[in-house]
Amino acid sequence: MTSVNSPSAERRPVVIVGAGPAGLAVGNVLRAASVGCVVLEAESRAVVERRPRAGVVEEWAVRALEQRGLGEGLLARAQRHSACEFRFAGERHRLEYGELTGRHHWVYPQPLLVTDLVREYVDVRGGDARFGVRDVELRGLETDRPSVSYTCPDTGERRLLHCDFVVGADGARGVSRAAVPAGRARIARHDYGIGWLALLAEAPPSSDCVVFGVHPNGFAGHMARSPEVTRYYLQCPPGDDPENWSHDRVWSELRLRLAAEGAPPLTEGRLVEKRVLDMHDYVVEPMTYGRLFLAGDAAHLVAPIAAKGMNLALHDAFLLADALVACLDAGDRAGLDGYSDACLRRVWDYQEFSQWLSEVYHGAAAGDPFRAGTASARLRRPFTSPVAAAAFAEQYLGTAERY
Amino acid sequence: MTSVNSPSAERRPVVIVGAGPAGLAVGNVLRAASVGCVVLEAESRAVVERRPRAGVVEEWAVRALEQRGLGEGLLARAQRHSACEFRFAGERHRLEYGELTGRHHWVYPQPLLVTDLVREYVDVRGGDARFGVRDVELRGLETDRPSVSYTCPDTGERRLLHCDFVVGADGARGVSRAAVPAGRARIARHDYGIGWLALLAEAPPSSDCVVFGVHPNGFAGHMARSPEVTRYYLQCPPGDDPENWSHDRVWSELRLRLAAEGAPPLTEGRLVEKRVLDMHDYVVEPMTYGRLFLAGDAAHLVAPIAAKGMNLALHDAFLLADALVACLDAGDRAGLDGYSDACLRRVWDYQEFSQWLSEVYHGAAAGDPFRAGTASARLRRPFTSPVAAAAFAEQYLGTAERY
Repeated sequence: MTSVNSPSAERRPVVIVGAGPAGLAVGNVLRAASVGCVVLEAESRAVVERRPRAGVVEEWAVRALEQRGLGEGLLARAQRHSACEFRFAGERHRLEYGELTGRHHWVYPQPLLVTDLVREYVDVRGGDARFGVRDVELRGLETDRPSVSYTCPDTGERRLLHCDFVVGADGARGVSRAAVPAGRARIARHDYGIGWLALLAEAPPSSDCVVFGVHPNGFAGHMARSPEVTRYYLQCPPGDDPENWSHDRVWSELRLRLAAEGAPPLTEGRLVEKRVLDMHDYVVEPMTYGRLFLAGDAAHLVAPIAAKGMNLALHDAFLLADALVACLDAGDRAGLDGYSDACLRRVWDYQEFSQWLSEVYHGAAAGDPFRAGTASARLRRPFTSPVAAAAFAEQYLGTAERY
Repeated sequence: MTSVNSPSAERRPVVIVGAGPAGLAVGNVLRAASVGCVVLEAESRAVVERRPRAGVVEEWAVRALEQRGLGEGLLARAQRHSACEFRFAGERHRLEYGELTGRHHWVYPQPLLVTDLVREYVDVRGGDARFGVRDVELRGLETDRPSVSYTCPDTGERRLLHCDFVVGADGARGVSRAAVPAGRARIARHDYGIGWLALLAEAPPSSDCVVFGVHPNGFAGHMARSPEVTRYYLQCPPGDDPENWSHDRVWSELRLRLAAEGAPPLTEGRLVEKRVLDMHDYVVEPMTYGRLFLAGDAAHLVAPIAAKGMNLALHDAFLLADALVACLDAGDRAGLDGYSDACLRRVWDYQEFSQWLSEVYHGAAAGDPFRAGTASARLRRPFTSPVAAAAFAEQYLGTAERY
């Protein structure tokens, strides 16, 4: 076993496992505060910068990135959305949330944000990021001398990092969550029993805003990605085979589920991506185990129904980074002690909204006339009650109480 | 078979089956408009005036009763509520909906309202009400000459009423709903899988407002009835035997589930009523069949979770009475043609709110940590977000868009 005195052992105050939005945001804040840290990532930098994931950043998160000097690329290139449209029973209902709240949705695909965060961390702030590491192991998390070991991709050599704190930001299938022993955290799970066929079409958008189609056949979604590419979603059975969805079947279902009086026809295009997403959620409570602090998908997964995942990751990251700086610079543990509770308030709030919205999207197709009736009432209310519209917009855009 | 020429046959434009709030409200409006009608009721007047049921009247319904000359007793004697209190996690959270909206809840037990409506219909407006009738049968509902027959309680004689329209307001177990053939209406049903033990205690209220206790053991409710009597609810298994709930068990569970920092202790008293209510809903769509128009519980049952039942009955009744007057006086069928759709919008809206509120009340005790987490977030939101509080208050108090 490698000891602290071994030539291959190093010491850093913070080891960050995972180079997604959460890990990289923590790393960037620590570098700006001159706190020593290292980011370990199983994939190569090129792969990390291409991983397709979320695309919506809430305005409070945009402001938080901007305040940390991390928002330049986003502010220059993101699309700013101010409305969405629901189509149901052959009618169009537009919700102008920008007018209602003065706030917006920012659409900025995760690969672009990650590319910005890697560049800033490595190339601008001189941060230490080690890509392609294998067999990461976390040790001594319940002691005040935790360590992280991994296999170096170039030499095949085993390396050891001693540290004060470990940030577990390596996602749903990473080693960090698995390092929490059963009985030391509770994992609450929810399975919607619903799939979404996620599609990328080489076709211009067919609306100037995000469109949600609610139909007895199931949900359909339309999101502009660029002038040439449009993302579509089609509700499908969980675990469905994308090969069951031919070009003709996809476009015929999209036309049916997104049909409404006065709506422009959909522009068809070649489907360059077809994946089935199974809708499920989990929450790890607490988000800490000794010196390990989970962040982002390692701590909680939220189905992409309300596009909340990346926002929760950024919320965790900024809370955690500030708490680590306060502890390491000034010996103030309050932020770290309160980290899990502070994160979980927003996590549960967003999980609740995702469930609420899931019923709006999927209730009509549940095969239960009572659910169809209540889902329809829920869907119609923001279009008949100004206070319901304001409450919906607040949750759709994300609570702004922090940052 | 009795013919229209039989000595015992009569003719009335409208026959109303059922002397609950819906049937009596229709009858009163018809009498005020000099439209001939008769109210048939299986129970005696004394029983009808004592049946325990709902107790909350929404402000729009108070105004509607007042406008029809039916609000005098209510306005003189009802308690006007302007706040409710939620207790959870040992804390008290008060929602001042009166301040938020300028509107109130009016607590007026159904027997008092029914007594007022019977007196006004029979004694003041000279309406024809026949109590204690047996074996009511509806015929020819799909023709333009429907009829209603019944057995007279005094003579045992069979009587026949020819009419233009039948109002089916005889509740969940009445003959009206059963007269709609299968396939001519859809009944959407929902079962919560939850029971409430409804209790009346000879004890003064222990709070100045309605209190809802949310606890891992289940929901508990506290509602003042008078200075000497308080209504309590305890969530229990559906179909539970009230005999399982001894005096000591009831008060011990109430103290536990309604406990909160700074809350006054509960004043115990003798339990003079213990009933188990099973929480379920249904909606009949459409609410019409030929010349039969269903109203109130005959058309839709809503679990007492949000105290909406009597309000829906009054909403139906005023819409239907106005539509009948317009048709019979002026030949205008628009109101009758639109009756079902107009009622069902509010019915589904209230069903949806009842389901939403059920999760707030019961999610913590569902034995599922994910549901407990989202239910807690839902419960906390009105106390952290002003727009969420306003949206909650609007639904709690009932949409005021009509009347």
